[in-house]
Amino acid sequence: MASKLSKSIAIIAGAGPGTGASIARRFAKAYPVVLLARSPSSLDPLVQGINQAGGSAIGIPADVTNVGVMDSTMKQIESQFGANLTVAAAVFNVAGKFSRSPFLDSGSEFLSDLESTARGATNFSKAVLPFLLRATESSESSYPPTLVFTGATASLKGGSGLGSFAMSKFAIRALAQSLAREFGPKGVHVAHAIIDGIIATEQTKGYNEDKPDAKIDPDWIAEAYWFLHTQPRSSFTHEIDIRPYCETW
Amino acid sequence: MASKLSKSIAIIAGAGPGTGASIARRFAKAYPVVLLARSPSSLDPLVQGINQAGGSAIGIPADVTNVGVMDSTMKQIESQFGANLTVAAAVFNVAGKFSRSPFLDSGSEFLSDLESTARGATNFSKAVLPFLLRATESSESSYPPTLVFTGATASLKGGSGLGSFAMSKFAIRALAQSLAREFGPKGVHVAHAIIDGIIATEQTKGYNEDKPDAKIDPDWIAEAYWFLHTQPRSSFTHEIDIRPYCETW
Amino acid sequence: MASKLSKSIAIIAGAGPGTGASIARRFAKAYPVVLLARSPSSLDPLVQGINQAGGSAIGIPADVTNVGVMDSTMKQIESQFGANLTVAAAVFNVAGKFSRSPFLDSGSEFLSDLESTARGATNFSKAVLPFLLRATESSESSYPPTLVFTGATASLKGGSGLGSFAMSKFAIRALAQSLAREFGPKGVHVAHAIIDGIIATEQTKGYNEDKPDAKIDPDWIAEAYWFLHTQPRSSFTHEIDIRPYCETW
Amino acid sequence: MASKLSKSIAIIAGAGPGTGASIARRFAKAYPVVLLARSPSSLDPLVQGINQAGGSAIGIPADVTNVGVMDSTMKQIESQFGANLTVAAAVFNVAGKFSRSPFLDSGSEFLSDLESTARGATNFSKAVLPFLLRATESSESSYPPTLVFTGATASLKGGSGLGSFAMSKFAIRALAQSLAREFGPKGVHVAHAIIDGIIATEQTKGYNEDKPDAKIDPDWIAEAYWFLHTQPRSSFTHEIDIRPYCETW
Repeated sequence: MASKLSKSIAIIAGAGPGTGASIARRFAKAYPVVLLARSPSSLDPLVQGINQAGGSAIGIPADVTNVGVMDSTMKQIESQFGANLTVAAAVFNVAGKFSRSPFLDSGSEFLSDLESTARGATNFSKAVLPFLLRATESSESSYPPTLVFTGATASLKGGSGLGSFAMSKFAIRALAQSLAREFGPKGVHVAHAIIDGIIATEQTKGYNEDKPDAKIDPDWIAEAYWFLHTQPRSSFTHEIDIRPYCETW
Repeated sequence: MASKLSKSIAIIAGAGPGTGASIARRFAKAYPVVLLARSPSSLDPLVQGINQAGGSAIGIPADVTNVGVMDSTMKQIESQFGANLTVAAAVFNVAGKFSRSPFLDSGSEFLSDLESTARGATNFSKAVLPFLLRATESSESSYPPTLVFTGATASLKGGSGLGSFAMSKFAIRALAQSLAREFGPKGVHVAHAIIDGIIATEQTKGYNEDKPDAKIDPDWIAEAYWFLHTQPRSSFTHEIDIRPYCETW
Repeated sequence: MASKLSKSIAIIAGAGPGTGASIARRFAKAYPVVLLARSPSSLDPLVQGINQAGGSAIGIPADVTNVGVMDSTMKQIESQFGANLTVAAAVFNVAGKFSRSPFLDSGSEFLSDLESTARGATNFSKAVLPFLLRATESSESSYPPTLVFTGATASLKGGSGLGSFAMSKFAIRALAQSLAREFGPKGVHVAHAIIDGIIATEQTKGYNEDKPDAKIDPDWIAEAYWFLHTQPRSSFTHEIDIRPYCETW
Repeated sequence: MASKLSKSIAIIAGAGPGTGASIARRFAKAYPVVLLARSPSSLDPLVQGINQAGGSAIGIPADVTNVGVMDSTMKQIESQFGANLTVAAAVFNVAGKFSRSPFLDSGSEFLSDLESTARGATNFSKAVLPFLLRATESSESSYPPTLVFTGATASLKGGSGLGSFAMSKFAIRALAQSLAREFGPKGVHVAHAIIDGIIATEQTKGYNEDKPDAKIDPDWIAEAYWFLHTQPRSSFTHEIDIRPYCETW
């Protein structure tokens, strides 16, 4: 880590195993990374791995759906990195629950999933944007400060029995567009990625295993986010889709 | 009102003045209408007007964002129209709050607006769908039972400072698509209307008043909803946009 | 036909059997209709049927892909209806060829299909728009003059092996949008309909015949176009989709 | 240039100054590049520059709208690089004419612009796809063979007076989607880039010159295309947008 970047960090919300871990490792090649996830158990091995590989990571168990929690989290981060901290990149990768069920059979979880995702995305954005804005004024930044949201197939299309998931993903896309139009002109790069397919993780191991490359490589989601981060403000990408070559769409 | 239709009703949520009132009056030409709105004051003159004109309307002050309220509302409607009641048409016309403000200046209303709209649309859909499904089996139905959601420009595009409104409108569009794909094959017509422009109401009177026809006529929103309702199941429209001829889009 | 409308006509290009015939019959309830199709054989029975039913129709065999042909067609129409003729409604319903074939196996027809559809839509629009504009100034018009284009599933999505068809349908949608934005402010209603499913015609009789209402009713495409035509300029719909309740989308 | 890649080349159509030149220089860092443009004058300095910088470029003046020309061009390329040549990357960057004019004032150029662009994109795709497919079987390929089309704002939206341009851009997008769905499963990466803003070139020098970074950097369009090329087949991006931070959209 070059010392001139020492006060510029990356924050990843939803830094569990899978995509979140890949994003964390990728951004840790350039910045100290702060990793947020609900459960400490998924954070610890990731933080350890990054630190052992020569990066710098801290993990903070945090429920981003709670405004108070994001406030205290940012204070904790400031106490760690100094009050003049800037955020070079922030990634909202909290997945939301994907569960297909008949609409009339769904209970209160239908709305609580939507509300927690929308609330999480909003709270996270409110917490990191002041530090992203500060980075636009910093001469230390190599790249424009970047805020990326992870979307899904359901960001574009509501499916039968998928109302709750689609509502949350549509809402996050709306937030990403609104923030891009408000903060883009101020120099913050806001982007939205549509992950359209199964991601290759421990949980999806059994799926499509006889077909090589049929699942999205989380390291390449991370590479795409990193590429977005490197774009100069003259040439921002707002939306990108990622899917396996054999996906029907 | 022909007696053979007497147990088939239309329910309009968000039946305040403006679009809601126009929709209520249009559907009252064919069905008894049940009008829901938060404040009794906006319901009373509308109910009176419809009844005086030979239609049949009842108004129920109801906060659709509250699950319990929708349950008791439906019970009240059943006690009025009989237990074998069917719903021919249901319209979710609750507007949500349109207020442009810098994202970082917004407070808790940012999320509460979104959550109440999403919750309202979900609660309303859960309450009316069983009665819409029942109507698909009824030999009395002239037209497929229909559920219409009112959207806006912000259903398709998140604007600067409009994150909360866009999130709620995107989410409702996601719900409409999901319900269309789940309940369409069962014979329920689910549709979504993008109202892209200023609607001519008392409140917007001063706006663009020197330019004739520059504001959307709420009676023609109602006509469009009625047209959607008359479509046979072989020929459903899911999405329609409505805007003044002079609107830039 | 009321005499006060006698100089205001409807023109339908692609007035063959199926959708074109339904549109012709629907608009013939209000206007004298001029029907264009490549082959006289498909025009004759339709024209005869409309005239026998008390309407007024003439058929002109015309290849709209040829600029010269549209010029002489409009002259022929003027000589029939008088030089101060106005066009109340014009419908471009020329289907284009739907044929799925591997891209690398396709020959010169790949481009000729696209080019003839794009050329046809352009020539037709250029020929009718002056008469539609004239209708905006006429006190005789009950409804804003209307230009409708028939689209398809492929208007929104390019499919494997369907490049030629999708290119032509995307191009027509682009034309419809451009004309709506140019001529809408002048009072001409330009609309685009996405027909997303199999249309019930003689040719599709064998398809899905055991499933009632699984094919789009061409009379209801016509009703939708007629509804679009009746919208006042305060409340124009630009795009509408139509599909059977059981269609997967 | 590593000799093991010597038979794998990149082909850029529309390799004039500006974006085409940037793409050429970027891909020349990894492959011998073949540059096609209508006029030799724009090719010569670019070819010279690449060769002097240690790359390998040849320029072929070619009108891609002509099927015969693409056939002879590919033969010429084969004679240069050997019959077992593969194409690692092909870019269709032919711009089409952007000219805003009232629809009814437009002449035959309206259609000829559309037709030449659509024809060019089709001919180019037919010529290069067999060589891209061959590359999927080659053990020499580091990256999946890639076909990229350059789009514009008008790929998504038809503007007033921009019908011809929008029709051609919509059509190219349809082609890109169709080819992605047909050739993606075969391992060819087909992508479409929406360039939404003014590109910084010699011609646009005077535009917005007092606002830094207000124009898209063509070198960063090239970087985006290169990034797309490097994606493994598990993680293809089909569509990407690029615009300046201050662009209104």
